[in-house]
Amino acid sequence: MLLDLYELTMAESYFHYKRDTHATFDLFVRELPASRNFLLSCGLEDILSYLKNLRFTGQDLDYLRKQRQFSGGFLKYLSRFKFTGDIWALPEGEIFFANEPVIRVTAPIIEAQIIESFLLNTLNLQTMIASKASRVVLSSRGRSVFDFALRRTHGGDAGVKVSRSSYIAGFNGTSNVLAGKLYGIPVVGTMAHSFVMSFKRELDSFLAYSNTFPERTTLLVDTYDTKKGIENAIKIGLYLKQRKHRLQAIRLDSGNIVSLSKYARNRLDKAGLDYVKIFASGNLDEFKIEKLLSARAAVDSFGVGTNMGTSIDAPSLDVIYKISEVTDESGKFLPTMKLSQGKVTYPGRKQVFRQKDKTGKFLRDILGLEKEKVRGEPLLIKVVQRGKIIYHSPSLDKIRSYVKSTLSRLPAVFKSVNSEYKYPVVVSPQLKNLRSSLARQLAERQ
Amino acid sequence: MLLDLYELTMAESYFHYKRDTHATFDLFVRELPASRNFLLSCGLEDILSYLKNLRFTGQDLDYLRKQRQFSGGFLKYLSRFKFTGDIWALPEGEIFFANEPVIRVTAPIIEAQIIESFLLNTLNLQTMIASKASRVVLSSRGRSVFDFALRRTHGGDAGVKVSRSSYIAGFNGTSNVLAGKLYGIPVVGTMAHSFVMSFKRELDSFLAYSNTFPERTTLLVDTYDTKKGIENAIKIGLYLKQRKHRLQAIRLDSGNIVSLSKYARNRLDKAGLDYVKIFASGNLDEFKIEKLLSARAAVDSFGVGTNMGTSIDAPSLDVIYKISEVTDESGKFLPTMKLSQGKVTYPGRKQVFRQKDKTGKFLRDILGLEKEKVRGEPLLIKVVQRGKIIYHSPSLDKIRSYVKSTLSRLPAVFKSVNSEYKYPVVVSPQLKNLRSSLARQLAERQ
Repeated sequence: MLLDLYELTMAESYFHYKRDTHATFDLFVRELPASRNFLLSCGLEDILSYLKNLRFTGQDLDYLRKQRQFSGGFLKYLSRFKFTGDIWALPEGEIFFANEPVIRVTAPIIEAQIIESFLLNTLNLQTMIASKASRVVLSSRGRSVFDFALRRTHGGDAGVKVSRSSYIAGFNGTSNVLAGKLYGIPVVGTMAHSFVMSFKRELDSFLAYSNTFPERTTLLVDTYDTKKGIENAIKIGLYLKQRKHRLQAIRLDSGNIVSLSKYARNRLDKAGLDYVKIFASGNLDEFKIEKLLSARAAVDSFGVGTNMGTSIDAPSLDVIYKISEVTDESGKFLPTMKLSQGKVTYPGRKQVFRQKDKTGKFLRDILGLEKEKVRGEPLLIKVVQRGKIIYHSPSLDKIRSYVKSTLSRLPAVFKSVNSEYKYPVVVSPQLKNLRSSLARQLAERQ
Repeated sequence: MLLDLYELTMAESYFHYKRDTHATFDLFVRELPASRNFLLSCGLEDILSYLKNLRFTGQDLDYLRKQRQFSGGFLKYLSRFKFTGDIWALPEGEIFFANEPVIRVTAPIIEAQIIESFLLNTLNLQTMIASKASRVVLSSRGRSVFDFALRRTHGGDAGVKVSRSSYIAGFNGTSNVLAGKLYGIPVVGTMAHSFVMSFKRELDSFLAYSNTFPERTTLLVDTYDTKKGIENAIKIGLYLKQRKHRLQAIRLDSGNIVSLSKYARNRLDKAGLDYVKIFASGNLDEFKIEKLLSARAAVDSFGVGTNMGTSIDAPSLDVIYKISEVTDESGKFLPTMKLSQGKVTYPGRKQVFRQKDKTGKFLRDILGLEKEKVRGEPLLIKVVQRGKIIYHSPSLDKIRSYVKSTLSRLPAVFKSVNSEYKYPVVVSPQLKNLRSSLARQLAERQ
């Protein structure tokens, strides 16, 4: 029932006038956000599990009946509804660009329409987060990064999806316990200021925590006075060392992280605690991490929350779901497209072809027709055939490795935080021709 | 299990060292986003239902045991965990400002800590959306506005919460069928471009749809050529009129809405279809609606999606959860506060007092200590007593009416879309004194 009412009203009308019509829809991003040079596809696993379980329950139908808008015949149709079409998609973790179909649905038009909102919603969230998170990973130059976003994600559902998407993009773990339980992502946790404040003295709080977790203690040092906090952490570090334990890290959450981290590194090293890591958090994102590391901040790991978990500079993608072909009376698929001002789409059943150089580096993508002869590796693969899921989603760690290896083939100019380079996506000759001839034809026909 | 791991690691340490310690935490917004002059409290109902059902299942405990970080004693404690504290909160729909507690929790410190992330996550999403949505409602000057955000909200959970929060803020309905089913919010739907494109001619698609819903048809007129689309809609309007039906509306989704809406209004009126409404959609928000209406666009209703449903100009609130008092060995509550650079908090058990003029208009708020004698209406009310919910959440429509009436008492200067006025929140003398004396005392003690 997670759909927009118009999918059902259109379906009711299709049910009476177009029951046997089939159509192809493309799900794609019209334009990349200004500060993105690539996107990472994410969300397919959830979409496949949705398609598998898609049903209308008796309760759902009762609710719809009460809207006094739907015919008995159509509600009966819904009671038996399942998805029977074909779907082609980019695997999770694939790099893609504007106008390239991420998902291509060919199905009876009612079915293709009813799944619209779920597909858009799922792809939008997870792709947006994976894409943002991979920028954070790239900016951190091999240091560890952890997802701390739960408190500011848009609900609990978004919370676990942010953990999953950022892990795929290369994050090392999450603070979100439910995501750890659901997906087996490593979970991490330090302490809050409230912990420190619940003791009379900061040192007492540090002592209690490190006695509880002698091998897994990260001390938050900025509750009162960061430099004094660092000295207290050193006392604890030495106390643990005497007992053959190792203080894991200290955490800086405010103030000038560049100078404080250098200061802390120096103090820790002089005290013989060179193995103690420095963890930074507090409003971080790829831009801030880039600046910190350029200024040689002595930080080993980052906790990244709100800015990643809401994709704060681009909290949505321009993701749309557009019909590209539809059958005529005889059942033959005919290409179609939209002519609305500033919103023209590409017609026909399409494929994305990726061209690489001899070393495997990406050169360009060609957006072409599925059956067109185009050089390059076709990226869309068949994942659903006549309603049956024929694709087995890889493990999270496999997707994560795939992202790492595929990102290594994207030329560096597209990966720097402030890059203004635009990866070339070329429209094939046949698709170009089809588009212009169809535009004329459609305009004339109206 | 929707919590951050540090809540559990701190809890394990509290369990050994501070089992009998109680504390008070304030949940508040540190600073309002630049383009907000007020916030609307939203999310309490979900928080109360969470507190009522909060348990750790056997599966949860198995997962935690496998982390090899928690003691058997603590896991046993968790297996019996429930919330036993007191909570004071602003009712849903209350207007509030920076630094004012929205929720105040007094409980055993472990319990207060374990609910942190859920409270923050829930309040953040729903308050952020209700606040954004109320700006959209204010900008629309009495016209109807509908939530069309589902496809771009951050997941399905966010989708239904956006519908609920925006309805509370004054939206007239949603396209989200699940939200309709869950909350009884009116659901609305028109048609997509794909519907028009699945027919050979636009006019055929209009005819099919209006035959299916002769009393509930809104025609999308911009698929090919908007002006021709309007003419086709007029044909359908007259066709329906002949059959004693009324075309409900046309929808404009692209192009220059100001000129197209005026053109459409004129054409419709001349054709004797002055009752046909004009519906506008496409990337709208309060800024764009304000501009459209200032330019006298002839629009009767708005569909508002992404920009509202992601609160695009402020996709998170600076919502935090801070300890403000903690018991000493004798069980006496002592105020506490954080001194971190740029992040200083207010100590003690606080209340918000709202002062109004004789006509009921809001003058200012006083942030004071709970037991301080301050003129003004105290806004925080007790909703949970010793773990028991003692507050009955009003119906959605009651909350919605409350928002309308309370917004009417907020002076107009704080309600215009581009207002830079800041509502006065004054810190009481006693709270000011406590803060400065405590700051000295805490700095000395470390």
